[in-house]
Amino acid sequence: MAVISLLTDFGDRDAFVGIMKGVIWKIAPQVQIADLTHWIEPQNVMHGALILGQSYAYFPEGSVHVAVVDPGVGTQRKAIAARIGKFFFVAPDNGLLTLPLEQSERLGEPIHVVELNEPRFWLPEVSKSFHGRDIFAPCAAHLATGVPLDEMGSRLDSSALVRVVIPKPQPIKGGWQAQILMVDVFGNLISNLTMDDLGGQAIRSVRIAGVSIEQFTRTFGEAPPGSLISMFDSSGYLSICVVNGNAQKQLNVRIGEPLEVITG
Amino acid sequence: MAVISLLTDFGDRDAFVGIMKGVIWKIAPQVQIADLTHWIEPQNVMHGALILGQSYAYFPEGSVHVAVVDPGVGTQRKAIAARIGKFFFVAPDNGLLTLPLEQSERLGEPIHVVELNEPRFWLPEVSKSFHGRDIFAPCAAHLATGVPLDEMGSRLDSSALVRVVIPKPQPIKGGWQAQILMVDVFGNLISNLTMDDLGGQAIRSVRIAGVSIEQFTRTFGEAPPGSLISMFDSSGYLSICVVNGNAQKQLNVRIGEPLEVITG
Amino acid sequence: MAVISLLTDFGDRDAFVGIMKGVIWKIAPQVQIADLTHWIEPQNVMHGALILGQSYAYFPEGSVHVAVVDPGVGTQRKAIAARIGKFFFVAPDNGLLTLPLEQSERLGEPIHVVELNEPRFWLPEVSKSFHGRDIFAPCAAHLATGVPLDEMGSRLDSSALVRVVIPKPQPIKGGWQAQILMVDVFGNLISNLTMDDLGGQAIRSVRIAGVSIEQFTRTFGEAPPGSLISMFDSSGYLSICVVNGNAQKQLNVRIGEPLEVITG
Repeated sequence: MAVISLLTDFGDRDAFVGIMKGVIWKIAPQVQIADLTHWIEPQNVMHGALILGQSYAYFPEGSVHVAVVDPGVGTQRKAIAARIGKFFFVAPDNGLLTLPLEQSERLGEPIHVVELNEPRFWLPEVSKSFHGRDIFAPCAAHLATGVPLDEMGSRLDSSALVRVVIPKPQPIKGGWQAQILMVDVFGNLISNLTMDDLGGQAIRSVRIAGVSIEQFTRTFGEAPPGSLISMFDSSGYLSICVVNGNAQKQLNVRIGEPLEVITG
Repeated sequence: MAVISLLTDFGDRDAFVGIMKGVIWKIAPQVQIADLTHWIEPQNVMHGALILGQSYAYFPEGSVHVAVVDPGVGTQRKAIAARIGKFFFVAPDNGLLTLPLEQSERLGEPIHVVELNEPRFWLPEVSKSFHGRDIFAPCAAHLATGVPLDEMGSRLDSSALVRVVIPKPQPIKGGWQAQILMVDVFGNLISNLTMDDLGGQAIRSVRIAGVSIEQFTRTFGEAPPGSLISMFDSSGYLSICVVNGNAQKQLNVRIGEPLEVITG
Repeated sequence: MAVISLLTDFGDRDAFVGIMKGVIWKIAPQVQIADLTHWIEPQNVMHGALILGQSYAYFPEGSVHVAVVDPGVGTQRKAIAARIGKFFFVAPDNGLLTLPLEQSERLGEPIHVVELNEPRFWLPEVSKSFHGRDIFAPCAAHLATGVPLDEMGSRLDSSALVRVVIPKPQPIKGGWQAQILMVDVFGNLISNLTMDDLGGQAIRSVRIAGVSIEQFTRTFGEAPPGSLISMFDSSGYLSICVVNGNAQKQLNVRIGEPLEVITG
């Protein structure tokens, strides 16, 4: 049984997501549907790209990931479907697929993209503002039932797709200049510096928001509750955390906040 | 595989919705379950009726829509199940089904209603305050497995069902007097004036909250970010929106706010 | 088809829960997954134990309940799986399973617990902070496909498991001293005094937050809107409610608030 995941900025107050599920099950009654999150910040494509990037690879091979963060809905932006490595994706062409594209390019995996321009795979009536319901959901369902990509639209070159530019950490004297990319539900601050960036270098201290954090730990359990620590999170990003507490509230910082990581 | 949808005012902090799913899968292990929304304003039947009305028709024929917004739970209000056109519904008799009833009456589709008064289809113990778990969920599951409506209770005349009165727009000199029915997650203000009400008439301007809105567009993309516009939403209702922004915050209006639409 | 339920403190802003579903469906593609709630107060094991306790028994026999409220992740706390009566559970050993354990001990049902220490049932790489994804989700999926408990780890004695101490109501002269355990989405205040505690005793009045509540009803419908009442909720706990209103806001009380129940 195929799996479809949904990532949107629709929240859960309206029935938008439930309607998409109705549309999907009308076409593909057996498919499993997982919500990734519907709380992407409204129309924040970068945020959607980051969350999709940390999630998609945990799904079964052949899963169809639908991402709808779509400030350009109703304009000339393209609607696309793609096979990127082991997974399918359906989304507007606005950068949401940047991380899987970069990852599969790095690994030399096959990438196959089409523009969704075959209306017979859409709902019969297409609105100007809800392509999640009218185009993305039905196309994802058809993909899940095995319709080949090339029937759903004309081939696009993946190098022509829109990408978001995810800020990279910069090496500085004695360490790295990084920034906060995301804040999770526990108030952990997730930076753009990864374990891979550091190679084998040890972390001596982290400076953020006028505070110097000397404790780098491998787990929450290594420091007493209330400690301000840095550690690698479950996706391999350097994070600033308060053990059993909320670093975002304690430091009062936001996405984009710079940090300096002293190594050696 | 049948589909059941759930619409309630239970939120997601408690396990009420998860418990209903457990009850359903105990009876109908194969059924797919979609959440429409669980954020209907507490006990606001009108709000539930509007969201159900814009959602139900996107589901597969034969789907069972369960709506539980139930300020009268534990009183003499009836619990009902119905086949209305292509869909089944399970709900308290308080107006939640008004829009599917009106729609199927308009189309001359068959309508078949029973009172859920056969306890063998309920949980063995029925509480006084959680009929979603004890009556509505198990009855919906039995319907999804193919139990005929008439086994589940005694026939009711659909003309005797409680209806909510959804305010209609009124024609005025040079246009329409309308009002805001709903606000969506993006802060778009959805009025009760539809494309059908207007026939072919063009919209010249909209007055709301002391502001006159001159831009009527077909899509968000036709006006620059930050513009205050009116447009028809994906369900055909006239809406007031800020492109890539939040009209509700900008105008500081609420459900029920009047607007004047100047046509011609 | 087996059912897995998920209860966590992960919220829905991040994709943590969606990722767990991807992991589960990769191993057990047919399994149904129900969210109980993901809004357990961060790292509040007692809250998780109470919600799990009121939910688990409504699921099909053989369901696998996954509970991840895990302040000790990355420390020496054990990860466990158990068959308790008719249900399976997967959780950290921190007290989350207290209520099903107590219930099955009371009924003399079989209890069978193992420590999850067989890495071949985990994801290949295990992080220090997200065992929901790396250990609990894959082990639950393997259980749902029929892997025997004893293959997944070494047997533990259930009497050695960590338990939370849920405050019990105390008999006082003429009644009971109780306290508020939970507040639901409607603002109903749920106490720790059950119908069973009272035996056949009638409730004369309840004193809480300086207010005396004289109306005890069996249903919401017995008192006019706005009335402050006490009644037994759908799980059998004495609750303080405002009919069609919000008792928590009206009384401005919190979890732990004491109440005196006068009987006779």
